[in-house]
Amino acid sequence: MSGSIFDSFLTTTDMQAVFSDQAIVQGMFRFEEALATAQAAEGMIPDSAARAIASVCSAPLYDIPALIAAGQRAGSLAIPLVKELTRTVALYDKDSAARVHWGSTSQDVQDTAMVLATRDALQLIDSALESLCAHLLELASRHLDTPMLARTLMQPAQVTSFGFKLAGWAAPLVRARARLRTAAARALQLQLGGAVGTLSVMGAQGPAVAQRMAHALGLRVPDGNWHTQRDEWVRLGMEVAILTGSLGKVATDLSLMAQGEVGELAEPSGAGRGGSSAMPHKRNPVSAMIALAAAARAPHTAATLLSTMGQQHERGLGNWQAELAAWPQLFLGAHGALQALNDAFADLQVDGARMLRNIDALQGLVFAEAASAYMASAIGRPAAHALLEQLSQQAVQTGRHLRDLALDAVRDDAALAAIDADQLAALFDPAQAAVSARHLAQEQLPALRRALAAPL
Amino acid sequence: MSGSIFDSFLTTTDMQAVFSDQAIVQGMFRFEEALATAQAAEGMIPDSAARAIASVCSAPLYDIPALIAAGQRAGSLAIPLVKELTRTVALYDKDSAARVHWGSTSQDVQDTAMVLATRDALQLIDSALESLCAHLLELASRHLDTPMLARTLMQPAQVTSFGFKLAGWAAPLVRARARLRTAAARALQLQLGGAVGTLSVMGAQGPAVAQRMAHALGLRVPDGNWHTQRDEWVRLGMEVAILTGSLGKVATDLSLMAQGEVGELAEPSGAGRGGSSAMPHKRNPVSAMIALAAAARAPHTAATLLSTMGQQHERGLGNWQAELAAWPQLFLGAHGALQALNDAFADLQVDGARMLRNIDALQGLVFAEAASAYMASAIGRPAAHALLEQLSQQAVQTGRHLRDLALDAVRDDAALAAIDADQLAALFDPAQAAVSARHLAQEQLPALRRALAAPL
Amino acid sequence: MSGSIFDSFLTTTDMQAVFSDQAIVQGMFRFEEALATAQAAEGMIPDSAARAIASVCSAPLYDIPALIAAGQRAGSLAIPLVKELTRTVALYDKDSAARVHWGSTSQDVQDTAMVLATRDALQLIDSALESLCAHLLELASRHLDTPMLARTLMQPAQVTSFGFKLAGWAAPLVRARARLRTAAARALQLQLGGAVGTLSVMGAQGPAVAQRMAHALGLRVPDGNWHTQRDEWVRLGMEVAILTGSLGKVATDLSLMAQGEVGELAEPSGAGRGGSSAMPHKRNPVSAMIALAAAARAPHTAATLLSTMGQQHERGLGNWQAELAAWPQLFLGAHGALQALNDAFADLQVDGARMLRNIDALQGLVFAEAASAYMASAIGRPAAHALLEQLSQQAVQTGRHLRDLALDAVRDDAALAAIDADQLAALFDPAQAAVSARHLAQEQLPALRRALAAPL
Amino acid sequence: MSGSIFDSFLTTTDMQAVFSDQAIVQGMFRFEEALATAQAAEGMIPDSAARAIASVCSAPLYDIPALIAAGQRAGSLAIPLVKELTRTVALYDKDSAARVHWGSTSQDVQDTAMVLATRDALQLIDSALESLCAHLLELASRHLDTPMLARTLMQPAQVTSFGFKLAGWAAPLVRARARLRTAAARALQLQLGGAVGTLSVMGAQGPAVAQRMAHALGLRVPDGNWHTQRDEWVRLGMEVAILTGSLGKVATDLSLMAQGEVGELAEPSGAGRGGSSAMPHKRNPVSAMIALAAAARAPHTAATLLSTMGQQHERGLGNWQAELAAWPQLFLGAHGALQALNDAFADLQVDGARMLRNIDALQGLVFAEAASAYMASAIGRPAAHALLEQLSQQAVQTGRHLRDLALDAVRDDAALAAIDADQLAALFDPAQAAVSARHLAQEQLPALRRALAAPL
Repeated sequence: MSGSIFDSFLTTTDMQAVFSDQAIVQGMFRFEEALATAQAAEGMIPDSAARAIASVCSAPLYDIPALIAAGQRAGSLAIPLVKELTRTVALYDKDSAARVHWGSTSQDVQDTAMVLATRDALQLIDSALESLCAHLLELASRHLDTPMLARTLMQPAQVTSFGFKLAGWAAPLVRARARLRTAAARALQLQLGGAVGTLSVMGAQGPAVAQRMAHALGLRVPDGNWHTQRDEWVRLGMEVAILTGSLGKVATDLSLMAQGEVGELAEPSGAGRGGSSAMPHKRNPVSAMIALAAAARAPHTAATLLSTMGQQHERGLGNWQAELAAWPQLFLGAHGALQALNDAFADLQVDGARMLRNIDALQGLVFAEAASAYMASAIGRPAAHALLEQLSQQAVQTGRHLRDLALDAVRDDAALAAIDADQLAALFDPAQAAVSARHLAQEQLPALRRALAAPL
Repeated sequence: MSGSIFDSFLTTTDMQAVFSDQAIVQGMFRFEEALATAQAAEGMIPDSAARAIASVCSAPLYDIPALIAAGQRAGSLAIPLVKELTRTVALYDKDSAARVHWGSTSQDVQDTAMVLATRDALQLIDSALESLCAHLLELASRHLDTPMLARTLMQPAQVTSFGFKLAGWAAPLVRARARLRTAAARALQLQLGGAVGTLSVMGAQGPAVAQRMAHALGLRVPDGNWHTQRDEWVRLGMEVAILTGSLGKVATDLSLMAQGEVGELAEPSGAGRGGSSAMPHKRNPVSAMIALAAAARAPHTAATLLSTMGQQHERGLGNWQAELAAWPQLFLGAHGALQALNDAFADLQVDGARMLRNIDALQGLVFAEAASAYMASAIGRPAAHALLEQLSQQAVQTGRHLRDLALDAVRDDAALAAIDADQLAALFDPAQAAVSARHLAQEQLPALRRALAAPL
Repeated sequence: MSGSIFDSFLTTTDMQAVFSDQAIVQGMFRFEEALATAQAAEGMIPDSAARAIASVCSAPLYDIPALIAAGQRAGSLAIPLVKELTRTVALYDKDSAARVHWGSTSQDVQDTAMVLATRDALQLIDSALESLCAHLLELASRHLDTPMLARTLMQPAQVTSFGFKLAGWAAPLVRARARLRTAAARALQLQLGGAVGTLSVMGAQGPAVAQRMAHALGLRVPDGNWHTQRDEWVRLGMEVAILTGSLGKVATDLSLMAQGEVGELAEPSGAGRGGSSAMPHKRNPVSAMIALAAAARAPHTAATLLSTMGQQHERGLGNWQAELAAWPQLFLGAHGALQALNDAFADLQVDGARMLRNIDALQGLVFAEAASAYMASAIGRPAAHALLEQLSQQAVQTGRHLRDLALDAVRDDAALAAIDADQLAALFDPAQAAVSARHLAQEQLPALRRALAAPL
Repeated sequence: MSGSIFDSFLTTTDMQAVFSDQAIVQGMFRFEEALATAQAAEGMIPDSAARAIASVCSAPLYDIPALIAAGQRAGSLAIPLVKELTRTVALYDKDSAARVHWGSTSQDVQDTAMVLATRDALQLIDSALESLCAHLLELASRHLDTPMLARTLMQPAQVTSFGFKLAGWAAPLVRARARLRTAAARALQLQLGGAVGTLSVMGAQGPAVAQRMAHALGLRVPDGNWHTQRDEWVRLGMEVAILTGSLGKVATDLSLMAQGEVGELAEPSGAGRGGSSAMPHKRNPVSAMIALAAAARAPHTAATLLSTMGQQHERGLGNWQAELAAWPQLFLGAHGALQALNDAFADLQVDGARMLRNIDALQGLVFAEAASAYMASAIGRPAAHALLEQLSQQAVQTGRHLRDLALDAVRDDAALAAIDADQLAALFDPAQAAVSARHLAQEQLPALRRALAAPL
């Protein structure tokens, strides 16, 4: 085991189980069992040998810490595992022992075990992602008509609808789910190449063995070995990194909107959740925190995978080992983030009144562009622009609302007689200002819902 | 301009032109022209305004260094560009000037300009990739029957065929080309959202304007703005990083095989190519060098893109700017690597005799596994394994060839009488040992050729 | 040239000049001049040769774009440069031409040129850093008594002093300046090793030549060549990355405090500064933006340097070239960030009244811990804690100030008779709450000022 | 726990123990004990409370997995730990329970626990580093006179001495040890700031408590809290990353020199070490492999630390948590690499004869530069250069040794009469060619030995 207590803290026990020592070792045994069984079916080894091997391909029969320790000396975990498996088969059946791992190589076993674990990891992610998207889309429908400030460059800008914002959070996640499935369909493939990728020991039967094994393990039959062709595998890793980046975007916004001074959102409270050891009044956004931590780490794990692609010749030295070791981190982080955000969005506290107050606190300045556009039709664009600029400054200096200043101007200035005061006032209505956003969201939501419902 | 002289060195002038200041500024003007034209078609602005704007949307009319300097102060390049464009239109037509950039925002212009440049960049990459794959596949066909050492963990392992190795280099590149096209089809989309992504200024006509613009610029119509939804864009970047990783794998092997002590491959020589300032006898593998440098940098540029995905609210502060600035590096490096490897593989020097000598220098030890498997049929696996182990040690100690030692043993030891000396000797034939590899390559090559020939 | 228009945007013209093609090429000529001069002084070449060489060691005499183009073919910029220098010397003096670059290698020239540019870069950084620290310390002195909210996990926590916060921003920058100087004193060393680092061509005179050259160029005499020992060089790079990280921390806080809903700080306004192309009322924090962009990129450039340290044998293939190309990015980004923050802090707008209002808006909840501690002395800790928890909930529900609720409780509840109402009320005074922070800052500032004033 | 079985594989059990859950939790208890003890000494809490608290500050008393699980909900490990500690104290002594963790905050506890673990980690590294340097320096002394090929750009270049190469491997490691100690002296400091870094609850006694605690724990007294000033901490991390980079450089060269076709070095063989599951004749360089894997990962962990420096306000959200979780990876990897290389160099197999044969195989071409320089004195530089170029080509074409061709030329060509054949022949002597290298190494070794012997 490695990593520290502060890793565990940011992931889930489910995902830890997927990449546990036990699970990986069991994956390696599943490979050995499938290999023997396929070779027996192809007549390469006796059926009895396959049965003898299969009967002891079970992790609980072995001393896993001892395997790991021996692996450190050997430079490969597969070597002691194959040795122990052979020794165990030999206890019952000497002849069959010689058939263990026939024609295969360490990397075949370890890569395939990692693929099997990754398939389980992706199921956890797929399901957590579906649930999070469902929460977001449900909230989006509910808040189509909730006006709130849009903010750019971390400054209030104009008015949008919270439903539109939610749709914008959901869309990349819905896409991520589809892309992950496509990438998985390509990357979850058997590894089988033998010592140097040529399957030479199995001769002409190699491809048939590969086909049988892939079928038995539920994996894709590869076009060939991928010992040092890591592209499809790394592509899958990049998809998880991109998903984590999109989760980080949601968490960034959530943490900003949950600031005390903004107060538009709050994570659900609950027993033992988000308290402070020093300040009892605080409620910390711990879901956002976990997702932000995952997003802070994923790019670097992704870079590790990319930078280990230059694996030498037929099987690499150091870079493959680094890739294997780094791989689970992406999934551990992503699932931690997904579960955290599911917690947050399952019972998100939305303060629509505060959203309105935050708009109001800006004294109508965020409506200046709309007012200017409307007035331009009456007095020409340059005059309208100049007028609004002047009124905006006045608003800042006097603390009055731009709407009131504008209505005063229309009442007092004959040149503005053509302007309809009611229509002008309506431009300062947040609900009115959110109409474009609402409309766009309404268009997008059905497609997102359909994409989410698409079968595997 | 930024970067240093040592950047230029690792890319191509073609790709530098794609991301030159001129090209990006021209892309911004193309956006403004397309915007005005689409708005006129939708009746939002007069046709004459669109014509007036379009007539001055040409980079050579403007002082680009002055725009850049003003952009540094403004915090955005689009602001001075729009200002200058407006001023220029106003020289001829005051009313039309007010129509410039109507309903759009800085990020719309800059993102779209980057998309347009990226489309050109991808065409360069697609074409260089096709040519490199063609070289590799052609070499693979030619060298199906060229035996060479396979090496694992940087040690000689067994015998493979150079054609099989070449197919293994080509396959990830053929896949990269297909994946890049798919990613491009999604990511090369118009950016149009207006100030906060809601297209509010254009009202109900916003989507129609977007459609017209995308059509005019040859870009995908986006599902919505992607100001802070960078997933499809970053996915495209990841594809370039993965391509670069696969190129780095080829360059790693090339550099290892070109070592003086290995001598199996050499880059073509030529005027001013790969010399040494201090050692006139040297020929440096400069193509591999350039590809390795690209592969060393790409993971970190990829990580930069991933780590800037958490863009705040409706438009980000700092992270978007960092993403834009980092983006071209991926393409500059990838194209440098592609051109370099095209140079190398267009006229690669393959020393098949040296490949054989390198096999031979190992005194037949790489055939021990095959010999052991064959003898097992006669004397049982454990005895065969023990015999070969003993003979291998003898070979190392005496410097004799394992084949000769094995044949001696068969001749001298009655227990081995069942073994056919000719069949045994044949196992030590490199050509024979490469048969599996040759067979696998033969199966793979037609599919790779078909994939390469697939139309855009 | 490489990179794009969006790089220029984030740095300074001064730093661009330091790493310009001209500057690097001139640095290479300075190396060649110093080499010839030192060799003449050691009697290895005639004085006349040294003079002839020195007389044409001037970048403006050469066609730099042509050198770069030839370098791309040669795999090294130094090769065409030495060739052109030799050719130029030969125009005047055939014999001396043969003395050019004697006993040196490409990497000697290029590394030393990069060292010379880096020295200039560090002077720019040192001076910008001094100025920024001075601004921060001056503001810290001025705002020792300015209470403001301390925030943890992005939630309001307790009260601190703005002066203390400023001291906390300054301290890492003051340390960065000192550490940069130490790292520079080690890393700014001559590179001179000859073809394979042994100075073999110069024989016993090699070390003396190195000493003379280092002296002439104002660089450290290295303990030996550092062609593939990049540790001190990379250490210097890491210092710049750490500086940039600390600048990013300041920019993060600045951007958060400048949010419309917080409004405690604003960057100075000014002509063409921080406007929005779509929203005339906005003032964007462009200084923070530039510093955040630098901080987003620096970790990845740092990782590039670290990952290129495994340079093969006596001179590396690909990794050294990648390191050289990546290097300037750190300095370009850091100086851009420094200049931007200098702009911001030279005329920072601090709204002390808003800081107080933000405290006040929390209805005294941030003082709960202090009130609880005080009441514990009268009624015991558990009772005090329970009371404050209940009062805090009441404050949230009723919107009343915790101070008022606490005073009511003291007045109404005989059990609290021992509590002094005035002392209790004083605990809710922000100025009082900031005393610890003020005190700590007062202790730290003199040491920071002294460190800043330390001579080079 | 997190990470996978393939992490364990690349580190040591000693370093895993340092960062184990137990060790970190015990570090947190040591903090709480030191806090209570110091506060009692300052009269802030009763001595009896300090004793009561100290008596249960022992990790084995607690259910660590339960703490971790509760920490996941709370968003902080310290919160449940403090709660459990308080509950446990209360079992015996209700009053003292209220004194637990007084005036401190979660981050104080967790950061200090990490500092304590890191101190232990650095002792392991310091000692492994000393031992590795000693091996390298001993080998360097022994091989001062062992000529071998120097290689540049992965091509044979000239001749060097293996002792010089070893000194070049050792020097960055000796420096790393010194720099790590300096960085540790700064970074191994107590964390104590209270809720927002102001120590406000402890009032004027805060600094005295900090001093006592630091003394008790053997840590530096900090200038102030460093909750969000991570510079010194990250600097220490960078030193470990740089060390790992230098180890990676050694491992790169080792793996290249151990290639079958080069055969100059081999890692020691031994039971269960470096075997292959498929090829019994192979001996894999597993030490190099582990060091290369560490070097492949460290840059990305370093980048993670750098990219989490922008921690918000008084205590960060997400970035601090990511930093804590990433931190141990650097130390786990570095110590794995150190132990592996210690294994390799303690019993390195050096094949000096093969080194000579590798030189010889190049037919004297690596001596061309020296020969040219010598002949220049007789026939002028241009003629000498041209002659050697011609002879070099002849050597390549005919397979003859350049020395013999040169001696033939001198014998046959009257124009070369002034050249002394014996002196010329001597230039082709590898031992002679290694003299400069030997001399430089001899100069460097004493200083390296002294630096290594410097007391802590």
